[in-house]
Amino acid sequence: MATTTHIPAAVVRRLPGYYRHLAEREQQGETRISSQEMSERLGLTASQIRQDINCIGGIGQQGFGYHIHELKARIAEILGMTRSYHMIILGAGNLGRALANYASFRQLGYEVCAVFDNATAMVGKQVAGLPVQSIDTLEAWLAAHPVDIGVLCVPPDNAQEAFDRLVDGGVRGIWNFAPIDLKAPPNVALNNVHLSDSLQILSYRMREIEGLT
Amino acid sequence: MATTTHIPAAVVRRLPGYYRHLAEREQQGETRISSQEMSERLGLTASQIRQDINCIGGIGQQGFGYHIHELKARIAEILGMTRSYHMIILGAGNLGRALANYASFRQLGYEVCAVFDNATAMVGKQVAGLPVQSIDTLEAWLAAHPVDIGVLCVPPDNAQEAFDRLVDGGVRGIWNFAPIDLKAPPNVALNNVHLSDSLQILSYRMREIEGLT
Repeated sequence: MATTTHIPAAVVRRLPGYYRHLAEREQQGETRISSQEMSERLGLTASQIRQDINCIGGIGQQGFGYHIHELKARIAEILGMTRSYHMIILGAGNLGRALANYASFRQLGYEVCAVFDNATAMVGKQVAGLPVQSIDTLEAWLAAHPVDIGVLCVPPDNAQEAFDRLVDGGVRGIWNFAPIDLKAPPNVALNNVHLSDSLQILSYRMREIEGLT
Repeated sequence: MATTTHIPAAVVRRLPGYYRHLAEREQQGETRISSQEMSERLGLTASQIRQDINCIGGIGQQGFGYHIHELKARIAEILGMTRSYHMIILGAGNLGRALANYASFRQLGYEVCAVFDNATAMVGKQVAGLPVQSIDTLEAWLAAHPVDIGVLCVPPDNAQEAFDRLVDGGVRGIWNFAPIDLKAPPNVALNNVHLSDSLQILSYRMREIEGLT
């Protein structure tokens, strides 16, 4: 079922969590679930969950809840989990190596195909079974291989240049871990990840629990 | 200004982005900003931004906008940026090392004080200027040093045990990077980070741009 409806970003952001929870319940042999049960586990109100599911075209039944398998399939479809993605990593430092080795990505359909670095000392070293390639060969590689997503694990000063080279080479999805807010042209999807955001949100919760806020 | 008002999680999640943007504008010598200007840069509607700022007690003026310095200070206060945090990292693999070396954390008041690992081969090695300690010494360390936040960079099978040991040792904030949803007692703040969530949200945006969703 393809749909042209726009799904609000806030809803999309909650879908991976819903998916994980549904997969977990399905693995436990369950076939249906209520918004109330999801609410308890996910820390959202049942009403919020019903709204979100309604928004993605999921249909629940009064007194029955949702078919886990159906709902899970619908979310997988929306998140594009029914296909696979070719991903390359720019920057073979600790973070680049960590992401290259992150097993969950492959399970979800994201395959790291190449790793690049600008340090001569890194070139040729193995990262997640792949030889690190010189960043000088990036354009040649992009011309010869399909790449869906480029992951930026480079220092902030190199991020804009690396971004431009990926986009010029036809990459349409950029996952940026350099702590700088890049801007993308309208035909490129960009996610600026700030790991510190998540740390600051944690601190807020700590203060809330302590009653200090 | 201390306030006892609960701020919705969705609003808190947007505050670090607001803060970064305000800091950037302030650095450029600007002193005031409108919700419209913030909207253009942040990809949120001006109305959403006004609601959020209203929710944290920020006051704007018709035709003037917000005082950047005041608003920034208010957000810093809410996010607990006016104090510093002692952080320890469990797991000195690629991700643990990447986080230990992440410069932005220190700038925001988060100091990595110790790194632990269960692999004998890792113990004693230097990570971000700290010697990796044996996980066997964790309890002794917690008894002797103040620790606000424990960062879990351990394999999923070890995550629950590591979590329990931190909580038993008095740590009240857990930042979990193991790809497993841990559950926390009510007096502990827990942030389960799933890096793949951010990747799936990126994929959704790519499909949206391609017109496939």
